[in-house]
Amino acid sequence: MPEFNLIEVIRERTAQSRGDVALGIGDDAALLKPPAGQQLASCTDTLVAGVHFPQGTSAQDLGWKSLAVNLSDLAAMGATPAWAMLALTLPQADSRFVAAFADGFAQLARTHAVSLVGGDTTQGPLSITVSAFGFVPESRALLRCGARVGDAVFVTGALGDAAAALRLIQDAGLGTRDATNEQARSELLLRLNRPEPRVTAGLALRDVASACIDVSDGLLADLAHICEASGVGAIVEADALPMSSAMLALFDAEQRRVFALAGGDDYELCFTASVDRADRIAADFARLGFGAARIGRIVAEPGVRVRDANGSTVEPPRRGWQHFAS
Amino acid sequence: MPEFNLIEVIRERTAQSRGDVALGIGDDAALLKPPAGQQLASCTDTLVAGVHFPQGTSAQDLGWKSLAVNLSDLAAMGATPAWAMLALTLPQADSRFVAAFADGFAQLARTHAVSLVGGDTTQGPLSITVSAFGFVPESRALLRCGARVGDAVFVTGALGDAAAALRLIQDAGLGTRDATNEQARSELLLRLNRPEPRVTAGLALRDVASACIDVSDGLLADLAHICEASGVGAIVEADALPMSSAMLALFDAEQRRVFALAGGDDYELCFTASVDRADRIAADFARLGFGAARIGRIVAEPGVRVRDANGSTVEPPRRGWQHFAS
Repeated sequence: MPEFNLIEVIRERTAQSRGDVALGIGDDAALLKPPAGQQLASCTDTLVAGVHFPQGTSAQDLGWKSLAVNLSDLAAMGATPAWAMLALTLPQADSRFVAAFADGFAQLARTHAVSLVGGDTTQGPLSITVSAFGFVPESRALLRCGARVGDAVFVTGALGDAAAALRLIQDAGLGTRDATNEQARSELLLRLNRPEPRVTAGLALRDVASACIDVSDGLLADLAHICEASGVGAIVEADALPMSSAMLALFDAEQRRVFALAGGDDYELCFTASVDRADRIAADFARLGFGAARIGRIVAEPGVRVRDANGSTVEPPRRGWQHFAS
Repeated sequence: MPEFNLIEVIRERTAQSRGDVALGIGDDAALLKPPAGQQLASCTDTLVAGVHFPQGTSAQDLGWKSLAVNLSDLAAMGATPAWAMLALTLPQADSRFVAAFADGFAQLARTHAVSLVGGDTTQGPLSITVSAFGFVPESRALLRCGARVGDAVFVTGALGDAAAALRLIQDAGLGTRDATNEQARSELLLRLNRPEPRVTAGLALRDVASACIDVSDGLLADLAHICEASGVGAIVEADALPMSSAMLALFDAEQRRVFALAGGDDYELCFTASVDRADRIAADFARLGFGAARIGRIVAEPGVRVRDANGSTVEPPRRGWQHFAS
């Protein structure tokens, strides 16, 4: 089956017209019309089978997730998503897989009016690279480098669900004992396989956050990126970490803390803002439906430290997901 | 070794500043400033080890080639290259490999003033996805769909060298018998490993070509894309196919014809133009240093046919490289 037919399958199933796409899939390159007066936010992320997702992950979930991780990067910049490109490498030309993948991709793309404008399908070990593009008005992008001593640290939604779901997949006996557990298990798996990029949160933070990052490698690792870029440190209150009821139902306090601090793949936004905005942020985010929890503060001393309710330092777990970590 | 360090190695070695890059590698996304009044040409191409390049290909060559195949797509649109993003998947964190890869990438990037603005490094089977971006004034891009009956068909440079080089790699005894052959062998390998994207040709064709594509899958396959998109057919004169002296030195007439018609990876431009421009095109391209040969004409009957000097139809070889072809 030639490459061309697979691209046609993807094109048909992801059709999403936009006035700023002069020429989409089908020529040597797409022709796009970026809006005047805006900056173009551009990112790319690869998902490799067995590294970034379990081998058994469904094609639909992969389609969704490969776009979601990129829209999450745009969200962390405060950008409005617009376009995406897809490079899909498959062991063999499996048009059913490709159709299901495209359906999952399209589901999320439509939610955010994202047009797939180009791509490449190749043969090789299963791997997906998506590039995503969005717009942000000049000088209003959310950067990592703006955190100031005294700022409050926030995180959207809940932390650790994706890591908890991975644990469930590794230990199939967990969470299947009764209907309540089954429900919790489903919720956690959905968080792993169908992360919701916090695009609306990113837009709401444009004139609010002093720094922002998405939590892809784990809270401690990603907050450390903010701290390094800003030349500051942070103290995180372990008891303030937001957690889902699903994770509460299935894991004990110690496990939950590890997942929330070091688990990757959450795709929440971690951001900083001046303390006097904290109340308004809490109220605004409650209205968005997923909330933003205040989890700590920015300090002068470099590094990220975690404290418990007594003020004692909590020894941090392994600091997030590191590719090539030994 | 954390991902961060590899990206730093790449960033340092590919540094190429541009005024239209507001924020490069290091945040969740790059922030770019597309020029007013231009369209943004965007493309992405993946190279997989063992599929798109022999396993022993050097890291420097891979760095060069992964960018070259994308700049070739931009060239085929008549776009001026500007930015690139790199998604590099490696079996292990090999900073020497990454440094050499970045050096090869940077060598070509500097030639075309391309700034690497973003990327992702992940662990997995060796695979490289590059996205590239360029500018083209509104309505001046070179499309595949503009070929008209009666147009002349041209191709830049020489055809078949990359396929000939692959044959040399498969049969190490070929072309090593004397100094002349050794020189020819080196030239062919260079064409495979360090293709020169025809960016200046693409720019020169903006107001000249009626249709254009880059020869990545083989002349017959790529010219067929022009014909399908334009609703026409083409006749190619086998004896007019441009070939390098290196290929002439090492392969017989029948092999050369197969390489020239069906060999992929040449990254020349195949284009059509009205016949009355043909002489000027030949003169203009002679000045560019690699020439453009007139190899056939566009006809109404669909399909691409090849004829020899007697006007007899030449049975075409396998039509180019098709991923997933059985």
